[in-house]
Amino acid sequence: MKNQQIQQLFLKVRSHKVFELFVVFIIVFSALIIGAKTYALPEQLLSAVYVLDWLITLIFLIEIVIRFLGEEKKTHFFRSGWNIFDSLIVIVSLIPIDDSELALVGRLVRIFRVLRMVSIIPELRLLLNSLLKALPQLGYVVLLMFIIFYIYAAVGTTFFAAINPVLWGDISIAMLTLFRVMTFEDWTDVMYETMDVYSFSWIFYVTFIFFTAFAFLNMVIGIVVGVLEQESQKLKEDEAKAAGAIRLEDIYQELQALKQKLDQK
Amino acid sequence: MKNQQIQQLFLKVRSHKVFELFVVFIIVFSALIIGAKTYALPEQLLSAVYVLDWLITLIFLIEIVIRFLGEEKKTHFFRSGWNIFDSLIVIVSLIPIDDSELALVGRLVRIFRVLRMVSIIPELRLLLNSLLKALPQLGYVVLLMFIIFYIYAAVGTTFFAAINPVLWGDISIAMLTLFRVMTFEDWTDVMYETMDVYSFSWIFYVTFIFFTAFAFLNMVIGIVVGVLEQESQKLKEDEAKAAGAIRLEDIYQELQALKQKLDQK
Amino acid sequence: MKNQQIQQLFLKVRSHKVFELFVVFIIVFSALIIGAKTYALPEQLLSAVYVLDWLITLIFLIEIVIRFLGEEKKTHFFRSGWNIFDSLIVIVSLIPIDDSELALVGRLVRIFRVLRMVSIIPELRLLLNSLLKALPQLGYVVLLMFIIFYIYAAVGTTFFAAINPVLWGDISIAMLTLFRVMTFEDWTDVMYETMDVYSFSWIFYVTFIFFTAFAFLNMVIGIVVGVLEQESQKLKEDEAKAAGAIRLEDIYQELQALKQKLDQK
Amino acid sequence: MKNQQIQQLFLKVRSHKVFELFVVFIIVFSALIIGAKTYALPEQLLSAVYVLDWLITLIFLIEIVIRFLGEEKKTHFFRSGWNIFDSLIVIVSLIPIDDSELALVGRLVRIFRVLRMVSIIPELRLLLNSLLKALPQLGYVVLLMFIIFYIYAAVGTTFFAAINPVLWGDISIAMLTLFRVMTFEDWTDVMYETMDVYSFSWIFYVTFIFFTAFAFLNMVIGIVVGVLEQESQKLKEDEAKAAGAIRLEDIYQELQALKQKLDQK
Repeated sequence: MKNQQIQQLFLKVRSHKVFELFVVFIIVFSALIIGAKTYALPEQLLSAVYVLDWLITLIFLIEIVIRFLGEEKKTHFFRSGWNIFDSLIVIVSLIPIDDSELALVGRLVRIFRVLRMVSIIPELRLLLNSLLKALPQLGYVVLLMFIIFYIYAAVGTTFFAAINPVLWGDISIAMLTLFRVMTFEDWTDVMYETMDVYSFSWIFYVTFIFFTAFAFLNMVIGIVVGVLEQESQKLKEDEAKAAGAIRLEDIYQELQALKQKLDQK
Repeated sequence: MKNQQIQQLFLKVRSHKVFELFVVFIIVFSALIIGAKTYALPEQLLSAVYVLDWLITLIFLIEIVIRFLGEEKKTHFFRSGWNIFDSLIVIVSLIPIDDSELALVGRLVRIFRVLRMVSIIPELRLLLNSLLKALPQLGYVVLLMFIIFYIYAAVGTTFFAAINPVLWGDISIAMLTLFRVMTFEDWTDVMYETMDVYSFSWIFYVTFIFFTAFAFLNMVIGIVVGVLEQESQKLKEDEAKAAGAIRLEDIYQELQALKQKLDQK
Repeated sequence: MKNQQIQQLFLKVRSHKVFELFVVFIIVFSALIIGAKTYALPEQLLSAVYVLDWLITLIFLIEIVIRFLGEEKKTHFFRSGWNIFDSLIVIVSLIPIDDSELALVGRLVRIFRVLRMVSIIPELRLLLNSLLKALPQLGYVVLLMFIIFYIYAAVGTTFFAAINPVLWGDISIAMLTLFRVMTFEDWTDVMYETMDVYSFSWIFYVTFIFFTAFAFLNMVIGIVVGVLEQESQKLKEDEAKAAGAIRLEDIYQELQALKQKLDQK
Repeated sequence: MKNQQIQQLFLKVRSHKVFELFVVFIIVFSALIIGAKTYALPEQLLSAVYVLDWLITLIFLIEIVIRFLGEEKKTHFFRSGWNIFDSLIVIVSLIPIDDSELALVGRLVRIFRVLRMVSIIPELRLLLNSLLKALPQLGYVVLLMFIIFYIYAAVGTTFFAAINPVLWGDISIAMLTLFRVMTFEDWTDVMYETMDVYSFSWIFYVTFIFFTAFAFLNMVIGIVVGVLEQESQKLKEDEAKAAGAIRLEDIYQELQALKQKLDQK
């Protein structure tokens, strides 16, 4: 009985608007400290930052504990990916960053605490989920694009590895070079170099740009059409609900009833 | 009584097409003078420009006064942001630009007089308003993008500050560098430099480009869908108005009446 | 009478598929000759090209005459902008290109003969017309963009002219530089140069990129929505025509008639 | 009779999920080997790769034979473009790559074996088909774009060939340079060079960028509208099927019947 009362209390705390705003404020504050640390700070400020850092870790720890205690069924807590992410961030934050071996990990984890913004603000969580949901739709286009990249990288390595091993040395470097060509970043420098040896190698680059641009275009159109379809689907359902009162079928049945009545007379 | 007559007169003047066209002409003329001043002009022309400049300021002053006097309730005049903007521009224009301290401000204000074009032409005002209205819709996507930028900038500073402090020195410089990477501007130069030390740093750049491109794409699609929905909403309302005469409900009621009549017989 | 017979004959000739195909072939051939002339050709081929060039001019002249004679009302011929364009091209082609003064004009006109492809193929003419029709729709967005460019160019010249007169010397050069920044072409080089003097000048570039990107986006969306609306309008009209047989109104009237019949009994 | 039994057996084998998965696995494996060969491998691994390569060729040969024998009518087998492609790839793979003359062809064919992924996975085949189907729709826009390129290339060669023969030497090189300008790749370097001689040549570049950007935009919008129309067409057909039960026409006929009944009484 008493256990449940505590849980109810913590649930109230964690659902309270002030609690949420306080956590958001702490995250923003921790982000500012991360930013501040990239500047050359005087010694005194540095130690203040050090203390603040531990304070933030402590607050996050308390917050997680409150949210955990507020959960009705404790095992449900770790079913949410965001809860696991939050807990991990807090636990790793507890590792002292003085240790030179783990210092880097500690510092990186402190940076990733900014991502807690996404886990705290429901609108951002929704946005990210919808972004992730759009990805699998594109699965086959991405696969096709990867095949295009792979073939061009293999051909590029075969012909151009001897010309410039820095750009075409092996297949993974060649794929990075092709990604660069796709973003149009100094792609002509890459091309002119190979055109000195193989004067027709512009065909390689121009066709590659066409293929990837076309595939990319199709990807974009795919997403747009997908989104629009979902919207129109939602719209239609709303309409169906709103217009639910009278349908053509109803009128048809009404007419059948009338006919029967006339026949009976 | 007489006061109101004057107001009516000025209202007439200010609403007159000729008055509007004259003001537009003066704005275009002032823009041309701003442009002309950037060229090396002979001494004589410069003094002519100087006189013309004051003449334009005078005309603008008179115009604002006319528009103010034409307002029915004087206090309403300053409720419009555009009126405040216009008044400010004219008042600051009165500061003599000979004063070396304020010369720059005076010159900048003269440039911003071109923006009066937007406040005068209703179509441009409408366009700008619709642009501004689209912004808040994107609020959360912009926030998400800022978080992505911030995290990548923090990670970038942690690892690359020692390699090139000009590009990765502190978090604000790193964000500018990331903005450059997002526009694909010589981003490979930035990457190759860090790949000499951390050979796997291409993952940093490629994932960043993917995240921002994907977020940007979602932003664009968000706007497109938003605009299309507004349009279809408008269309449906038009339809509803046009088709208002006969609806399925009317026919249904008609049928009910028929049935009753049959029953009564 | 005889005059009319000749006109009918020429109308037949000019409407014939073979005649059209022949003209298209000659245009393609003339385009190939223009291309061929840009290569270093042996003396003999050059004189052959010279002869072929005159032959093409002659054929075009005959073609224009045929099309003119085939017109029922001679004055209508010059009402079409394409006919005027074609005639001008042919007339200027008659100027001998040996004359060194006019040689360049003659050569340019020969190049613009390729544009006759558009005037001959109806599908291309239609496409170009639809492109031109989309332009005025964008009038105000283009005006707004021009104002943005003008203001930024004026501000840029004011501050940066002393730093790099080649890029910011006067307002027209500054606008070209801003166009370059808009295409992301080495824009960071332009920025870093001015940041050495005014360290906050990155605000100038980043806001400019945002404004122009946003305006451009709106332009694109404006066109897309415009096109989609036209399509849906067309679709609705088709539907209205197809569904013309039975409308709700018809059923309503039918019901009224039934009611009256029942009342009469 | 026995022949048909064998065919049925092979049809069963080739339609089996395990068979398909095995082939996909072999293709992925062959892709990995192609990638591995671009790295510097120890002697022993190289000979292992060599053996594996022949093994893959053998498996592909067996697979093609199975699919051929599984075909009911042998002549139908070569009606599918993908079957011809697969057979060609396998046959050319049989050429020994030791022969220095044909070594390159053999190596390229091994790379193109990755494309067999597309021929094996139905979803990718569908995707590619839909991409190819979208192309002819764009025929005239592509033609118009080619005409723009050709005219600008001819004008560019006429004026700029003397300035930089590497970029503007002949019409094909000039077209490649213009493609570079279209991708915004260091286009200002090209422009500044010609502006030293013809100071107004920026008009050439800026108008070219506008024309191509506008044509490209129209192309994209053309595809989007085309796709959306197809979708809405499909949607409408689905609706028509779903709502097939009751249409306005049915109700109208029902009413006519009622009327007749009333008249008969």
